[in-house]
Amino acid sequence: MDDSAPRSVRSTFSWLVGASQVLGLVSVVLTGVWMGHYRGGFAWNGSVQEFNLHPLCMVLGLVFLHGDAILVYRVFRNEKKRNVKVLHGVIHLLAIIISIVGFAAVFDFHRAAKIPDMYSLHSWCGMATFILFCLQWGMGLLFFLFPGASPWLRASYLPIHVFCGLLLLVMAIGSCLLGITEKLLFSIMPAYSQFVPEGVLANTLGILLVCFGVLLGYLITREEYRRPPNPEEESLSVHFNTFTEGSWRDDIPFTRLTSS
Amino acid sequence: MDDSAPRSVRSTFSWLVGASQVLGLVSVVLTGVWMGHYRGGFAWNGSVQEFNLHPLCMVLGLVFLHGDAILVYRVFRNEKKRNVKVLHGVIHLLAIIISIVGFAAVFDFHRAAKIPDMYSLHSWCGMATFILFCLQWGMGLLFFLFPGASPWLRASYLPIHVFCGLLLLVMAIGSCLLGITEKLLFSIMPAYSQFVPEGVLANTLGILLVCFGVLLGYLITREEYRRPPNPEEESLSVHFNTFTEGSWRDDIPFTRLTSS
Repeated sequence: MDDSAPRSVRSTFSWLVGASQVLGLVSVVLTGVWMGHYRGGFAWNGSVQEFNLHPLCMVLGLVFLHGDAILVYRVFRNEKKRNVKVLHGVIHLLAIIISIVGFAAVFDFHRAAKIPDMYSLHSWCGMATFILFCLQWGMGLLFFLFPGASPWLRASYLPIHVFCGLLLLVMAIGSCLLGITEKLLFSIMPAYSQFVPEGVLANTLGILLVCFGVLLGYLITREEYRRPPNPEEESLSVHFNTFTEGSWRDDIPFTRLTSS
Repeated sequence: MDDSAPRSVRSTFSWLVGASQVLGLVSVVLTGVWMGHYRGGFAWNGSVQEFNLHPLCMVLGLVFLHGDAILVYRVFRNEKKRNVKVLHGVIHLLAIIISIVGFAAVFDFHRAAKIPDMYSLHSWCGMATFILFCLQWGMGLLFFLFPGASPWLRASYLPIHVFCGLLLLVMAIGSCLLGITEKLLFSIMPAYSQFVPEGVLANTLGILLVCFGVLLGYLITREEYRRPPNPEEESLSVHFNTFTEGSWRDDIPFTRLTSS
């Protein structure tokens, strides 16, 4: 956090980041406990134990790592922007690899058990999230990490990239909640309605994922936690807020939109 | 839309607002068709036909009307702020009344059919959304419509109110998607996995609700669609962006934060 920010702002920011990490890690652990303890553990043999890797990989990859990849822009606000960009891209790549393992696990299990693919709302939302996530990663790489796009194109795309990043985190969490509901209704009905421990644990996991998303959304959208403008970097990059504030003012030359 | 904005921005805004309304209305109609045509229609007699009012009321109240209540600040950007506030509060109140009917329908059906309440993740998320929605409405009334709170308190609460408004729309849509999944798994398994028309219709409804949320989120967060600052109103109210940009600068007197 920037040294010029008052201590109360820095302290609140640190507490919120810490809380988000606790929520994210507890969510991953709870998913592991649910699948490991209540659903028979893990394996890679086409059985339901292979399916069990699916929730674990999606919560770890598309939620926890995805959220943290966005958060690096707030946590490392005073580091060199290019380094933060590389870290942002690398964590996202890790999230994609783990998600691919998660998808492979569920498709492999479905094939072995002769269960049709892609019929449920969970699968539609989850697949849409993953495809858009990969597109977002590829576009981010082309626009911001390699000097392929013109400054005007980068400036035009940045607000959309930022909006889609948060949107995809929300969609990932929503897809996880749909998956939790599906799994519970397939596995423990009618005991689910009797408040059995497995149902309460999985519901709690859903609520923790929502809380993780709320905290991340708050940390990302609060103006005082944004990266401060750096004159040395502004010539190479653009500041989201500066651009969006002036983006309908066609009378202002583009250089003024990016240099203030 | 403000007359000073270029025609392309005004045109895009109008198209996006129009698209959001089409998406919202089609979602409400599809919910009605699903419950009316595939699930036996509507009644108020404790039967499953009474339950059928629940999805219709929640999609209409907590999603469509809730979204439109937020959107009035963008659509009526040049109207007197107090009138827009009243409209915002009245549409929200309508949303609350319709939601109460929806909740009554499901609890009444559960009681008659001896089904336990509040055991599922859908019910936890839905109830949390509704309680927070009512709190948000009450707080909004106290802080912004009646002159109960000091300008400092109103300015401090405004960013939280704005953040929570969008968050609750997301939570409402997420709860609807969980409800769609529950209803399909209870009603049409194993036919759901054979891509029967009812399943495809309900999945499509879920995707339309997501698209409605994405469009609303985009319209609400884009800087160029915000209400322009009005010097006459700034003395009575605060501009979200102005405040959040300067909110960590303790050295600036509050009057400067609200008057720029």
